[in-house]
Amino acid sequence: MSTVKPVEYSDASPAVRAVFDDIKTSRNVPDVNNFWKYLARDPVTLKRTWESVKEVMAPGALDPLTKEMIYLAVSAANGCDYCIAAHTAGARRAGMTPAMRGELLAVVGMACETNSLADAYQIPVDERFRDPDPDTD
Amino acid sequence: MSTVKPVEYSDASPAVRAVFDDIKTSRNVPDVNNFWKYLARDPVTLKRTWESVKEVMAPGALDPLTKEMIYLAVSAANGCDYCIAAHTAGARRAGMTPAMRGELLAVVGMACETNSLADAYQIPVDERFRDPDPDTD
Amino acid sequence: MSTVKPVEYSDASPAVRAVFDDIKTSRNVPDVNNFWKYLARDPVTLKRTWESVKEVMAPGALDPLTKEMIYLAVSAANGCDYCIAAHTAGARRAGMTPAMRGELLAVVGMACETNSLADAYQIPVDERFRDPDPDTD
Amino acid sequence: MSTVKPVEYSDASPAVRAVFDDIKTSRNVPDVNNFWKYLARDPVTLKRTWESVKEVMAPGALDPLTKEMIYLAVSAANGCDYCIAAHTAGARRAGMTPAMRGELLAVVGMACETNSLADAYQIPVDERFRDPDPDTD
Amino acid sequence: MSTVKPVEYSDASPAVRAVFDDIKTSRNVPDVNNFWKYLARDPVTLKRTWESVKEVMAPGALDPLTKEMIYLAVSAANGCDYCIAAHTAGARRAGMTPAMRGELLAVVGMACETNSLADAYQIPVDERFRDPDPDTD
Amino acid sequence: MSTVKPVEYSDASPAVRAVFDDIKTSRNVPDVNNFWKYLARDPVTLKRTWESVKEVMAPGALDPLTKEMIYLAVSAANGCDYCIAAHTAGARRAGMTPAMRGELLAVVGMACETNSLADAYQIPVDERFRDPDPDTD
Repeated sequence: MSTVKPVEYSDASPAVRAVFDDIKTSRNVPDVNNFWKYLARDPVTLKRTWESVKEVMAPGALDPLTKEMIYLAVSAANGCDYCIAAHTAGARRAGMTPAMRGELLAVVGMACETNSLADAYQIPVDERFRDPDPDTD
Repeated sequence: MSTVKPVEYSDASPAVRAVFDDIKTSRNVPDVNNFWKYLARDPVTLKRTWESVKEVMAPGALDPLTKEMIYLAVSAANGCDYCIAAHTAGARRAGMTPAMRGELLAVVGMACETNSLADAYQIPVDERFRDPDPDTD
Repeated sequence: MSTVKPVEYSDASPAVRAVFDDIKTSRNVPDVNNFWKYLARDPVTLKRTWESVKEVMAPGALDPLTKEMIYLAVSAANGCDYCIAAHTAGARRAGMTPAMRGELLAVVGMACETNSLADAYQIPVDERFRDPDPDTD
Repeated sequence: MSTVKPVEYSDASPAVRAVFDDIKTSRNVPDVNNFWKYLARDPVTLKRTWESVKEVMAPGALDPLTKEMIYLAVSAANGCDYCIAAHTAGARRAGMTPAMRGELLAVVGMACETNSLADAYQIPVDERFRDPDPDTD
Repeated sequence: MSTVKPVEYSDASPAVRAVFDDIKTSRNVPDVNNFWKYLARDPVTLKRTWESVKEVMAPGALDPLTKEMIYLAVSAANGCDYCIAAHTAGARRAGMTPAMRGELLAVVGMACETNSLADAYQIPVDERFRDPDPDTD
Repeated sequence: MSTVKPVEYSDASPAVRAVFDDIKTSRNVPDVNNFWKYLARDPVTLKRTWESVKEVMAPGALDPLTKEMIYLAVSAANGCDYCIAAHTAGARRAGMTPAMRGELLAVVGMACETNSLADAYQIPVDERFRDPDPDTD
């Protein structure tokens, strides 16, 4: 249970409605999800966050499914319940099959394990991990 | 600087050499990286971790590049310097271009931001994120 | 649901009651919150933690509102549900308005995003961030 | 040591230079810091991140010093070396004294301790932490 | 509420049943806990994770109680509700008394506090923490 | 490199010297380590933190070696370089052998992996993890 109440469309200011409308149109959904309704308590953050998410998640060098899976992987590593649920739904919509989800979460778990081992053993970075021509990246 | 010394091939026990040999063959590399040399101080963990990584990172429902990028994303979220360097190198070898890396890290950053906002606003999970037929997943 | 039961005042030992009494007097509240009732299962930790919190949160170079907001910011970054709720309430009591809360959480989110980007890009610290005269700090 | 090279002004594209110029003007500094030089490897992320930081850190319901201290607190909780150094410098410039820094870090440490205790004891949120009139927040 | 459904023994494939049987026999319990029932949606991860846990948690240089307490400590530091509950139960079964639990969680809290302070003050590692003869470790 | 300078005994105020003296006597060491020298920039935090550490790490229901190992485990999970180094040294002094360290870190790694899996699969807590008689704990 949150300490704030969500903003529903019927109660929203014109500025908030404009963001809600853009989300609904961009995603072709009948209503925005709770994340946006709660964030709407701070209209400036609502607008900035939506515009950033829209830009970051647009197809580019990576396709939408890969981006949703990376979002899910980070949310799982951070243990954020809401975002795990939201981006599991998002990745499924974008084509993630149960087998892909299984492998994705196995990689997340393995990364968390080896991250802690690399820290715990204080392992120095190998010289050859350095790019021979970093200017090109 | 670590509090343990790495195990070099020339000083390794037969059990450790067997793992090192398998890593070199599987990855077609002349030497194993520091992660394995330090982990070799505990041969049981070395063997189990390598066998797990080999199984988890093998191509399956997800291709090797996607797996390396997910590994890198989680390592960045966890702030593990060694693993960020190692899996940046790994993802590059698997085909990650500078443009893909830029978009991947943008998703990681956005996920970390919205993870903290979802936690901070204590946003309840939307009912529609629940699978209508979770038996099939 | 916790795996331990809270200690209510009526069932508390004299040592626990003394801490509960000090909390109620110091904060001018009719009852202590759940944090202290559960911690009371370990009276030594209860006493030490309360004395530390009382010292740390007392007005000094920083005023109580700023301290409550910093506590809330860290709790949000750590994703601790209980502490987010408790210190949202505490910061409101100390004067945090809805507009202040909105800006505070926007800073938290932005910090989490750029923290992950700085780690991911392995950015070296600028020399000029070093204090020219650190003796004075 | 990073796996990418920073972008210096003399080598920057017009789009990157425009962001660098805006940072230098807005902050009245002769050069941008490393964070922006490395992020410039991805000009889209550079532009979006700078615009977000500029909006979030502008004075509003919270003054710039409070915002810098919250940024520092979150960076310390997340253990991000670069951001701790950068926002220690930023908070000092905005007026943070050594005594304020000492108290700020004491609150961060105490929050991290009680966050882990609240999680570990699985303490349920007190009903009275819920706002009696959340519509107004 | 999870986005997947657990796999019950009666509905499990032979491969999943074989793992469930081994867990029940090894731990002398009538049924496996939810962790394994949900992981069973990905039989490969189920098998690998169980085999790893069985190997890691077996008595060796450290006794089972110490291992369960370390597992609980890490789970508390990571804020994982499920694992805190599971390994509190596990440590109790292995002999953890209420007094031991109290001291364990006090150490966890203190470590989280000083971890954040050591990061925040960017304290350099003392030379004498380096082993004079790390070859022997 | 830190943004503050450590306080050496010769430059310390009487209040700081009193804490340094108590550390040296309690631990039977010729000098305090860097953690205390940097914390001494804030004498109030220095005194409170030392008194808390002394109380928490004293032998009780858990022996000093177990406490040091738990401290190391949490520091590894949190990725705190300084504390990993300090408490590896502390645990060794208290009797941790290389074999014990190997098993300890293997448990840490496994806990980090299963913590992320339990979060990612959003696994509900088993009813039987609840204590049948929590009053006694």
